[in-house]
Amino acid sequence: MAGCDTAQLAAAVSAAGGLGSLACALLSPAQIAAAVGAFRAISNGPLNLNFFCHTMDPVDEAADAAWAARLAPYYEALGIDPRSVPPAAVRRPFDDAACAAVETLRPQVVSFHFGLPQASLFERVKRSGAAVLASATNVEEALWLQARGCDAIIAQGAEAGGHRGMFLARDPAKQVGTMALVPQVVDAVDVPVIAAGGIGDARGIAAARFLGAAAVQLGTAYLFCPEAKVSPLYLRALQELRADGTVLTNVFSGHPARGIANRFVEEVGPLSDAVPRFPHASERVAPLRAASEAAGTSEFMQMWAGQGAPLCRVRPAGELTRALAQEAHVLMKRH
Amino acid sequence: MAGCDTAQLAAAVSAAGGLGSLACALLSPAQIAAAVGAFRAISNGPLNLNFFCHTMDPVDEAADAAWAARLAPYYEALGIDPRSVPPAAVRRPFDDAACAAVETLRPQVVSFHFGLPQASLFERVKRSGAAVLASATNVEEALWLQARGCDAIIAQGAEAGGHRGMFLARDPAKQVGTMALVPQVVDAVDVPVIAAGGIGDARGIAAARFLGAAAVQLGTAYLFCPEAKVSPLYLRALQELRADGTVLTNVFSGHPARGIANRFVEEVGPLSDAVPRFPHASERVAPLRAASEAAGTSEFMQMWAGQGAPLCRVRPAGELTRALAQEAHVLMKRH
Repeated sequence: MAGCDTAQLAAAVSAAGGLGSLACALLSPAQIAAAVGAFRAISNGPLNLNFFCHTMDPVDEAADAAWAARLAPYYEALGIDPRSVPPAAVRRPFDDAACAAVETLRPQVVSFHFGLPQASLFERVKRSGAAVLASATNVEEALWLQARGCDAIIAQGAEAGGHRGMFLARDPAKQVGTMALVPQVVDAVDVPVIAAGGIGDARGIAAARFLGAAAVQLGTAYLFCPEAKVSPLYLRALQELRADGTVLTNVFSGHPARGIANRFVEEVGPLSDAVPRFPHASERVAPLRAASEAAGTSEFMQMWAGQGAPLCRVRPAGELTRALAQEAHVLMKRH
Repeated sequence: MAGCDTAQLAAAVSAAGGLGSLACALLSPAQIAAAVGAFRAISNGPLNLNFFCHTMDPVDEAADAAWAARLAPYYEALGIDPRSVPPAAVRRPFDDAACAAVETLRPQVVSFHFGLPQASLFERVKRSGAAVLASATNVEEALWLQARGCDAIIAQGAEAGGHRGMFLARDPAKQVGTMALVPQVVDAVDVPVIAAGGIGDARGIAAARFLGAAAVQLGTAYLFCPEAKVSPLYLRALQELRADGTVLTNVFSGHPARGIANRFVEEVGPLSDAVPRFPHASERVAPLRAASEAAGTSEFMQMWAGQGAPLCRVRPAGELTRALAQEAHVLMKRH
């Protein structure tokens, strides 16, 4: 949800009985502190801070030059001067400074994507009192996370929008659907499993519970909330989306992520070997995304979305959260 | 299940309260009659005959020659003389002769994959008294099938083993997971929806029911039954399979299908533009499959499997069917 989440969104979710989350991968420690401050100014509910745990390689100059050349025709078509482009925010891995922010801010929950930080940082997070969650896309990853002390595992099915959490798995074509993944992870680990991917309404929540999940994680559904920072073009694309209108693509960041298959995704990807390694692909794409939006077209925009999007409707986050919980409860009672 | 199904398997399923099915795509009308006769000799339960509805183009000689050249090194490595290869059975579309067999044999249910046969054949099947099912992989396909008179829609999620039923959808990378697909199809159509894909045990059945499915279809689970015609190498591969060990591949037939990612799939595919159109790719691959199995290796074998395979265990089909129904019932009662 990085870039789309807000303190208002997270606070509304937590106030309604859910666990609101702030995406920290694009934030400096000062920005994290500001976001948590904004959340706490309007909520005393529980808070989850989410971090990425990738290895941050230096920019590969040759790969970057090739990428710039690949994108040059689009820069030209959109009237962007490559020399006038301001530096873009790049996704940062969880590090000592982010860990210090956690120790100071003391969120109830910290979640990680792409594995876990090094053991010393992980231990500091645990000692801060936070419960630690992390994403697994197969059984091997789930066992790896459990062995290192995660308190719960997010089983991220292939339907999920945004970045695939895969960190031992290598092939996006082999990612597993939620229906098959959740019970296999539940069977493999002793900690609670949180189901993610393709869950758009109460039916999916009830289904996930029967698969053995202790809880569910929804992202796309909350992109439809007025509290989310989603541009009108993105929201319209979400509302017009069909389940088979998304695809796993690496063209925005270098790592496979599920998003709406627009012109940029189809022409350059969806999965391309010419893309620089995560997260550096994003720096050259950021100007295209911005110019596309400014020109009133979503053709070059990064629009993460899961396959459950057509199940979602525009409504305030608190109302959505309460409705999901209540409707799932009624569904499960009825049988 | 074509090639793996048996009359004994279907009869055991029907005797236990399920709907046993015979795969007819590889059978002549005489072979269909023989299979139905074998079923009825041991069962008076309901029977489903499944047919494919593809367009049967003539062999494209140029594509076939290129395919033969691509496979030549494997023929050589496995010691196959291309001139000594007997003609292989090829998947046939539902036609007048198959329809006449249906009219004579009067199965309770006829199901179609890859769309529907032409209207005159479809009407003859309906007039025979059979209920007609067909597979949809997205909402558009489900609406198309409903508009033409199908009595129920099989919503085939991306987790499913074997051929993708896609006939309006074109891109296998955009196929939708069961968790997201089923409720969207349920919302779109008025007829009952049968969930397929990633369902390996009672938890998946209960989950599918909460997604709105009226019933479920399991294939991979029945490959583990002693009544199935599954070779020891295939069964061992199924038992050792992990959820992310399968992939959508077109190298065996020309149409995307989910199977175990072995050497042949990885080296030639998994999805290749060099493969002749369905179903003709299979004729050149058949000798490789046979020689591989004869040599005691599964490296070149066609081993369809869904992502739920790790949830499945070896047990007789009747026992499996009764256990699935009872365990799902208990699960749904408990909540």
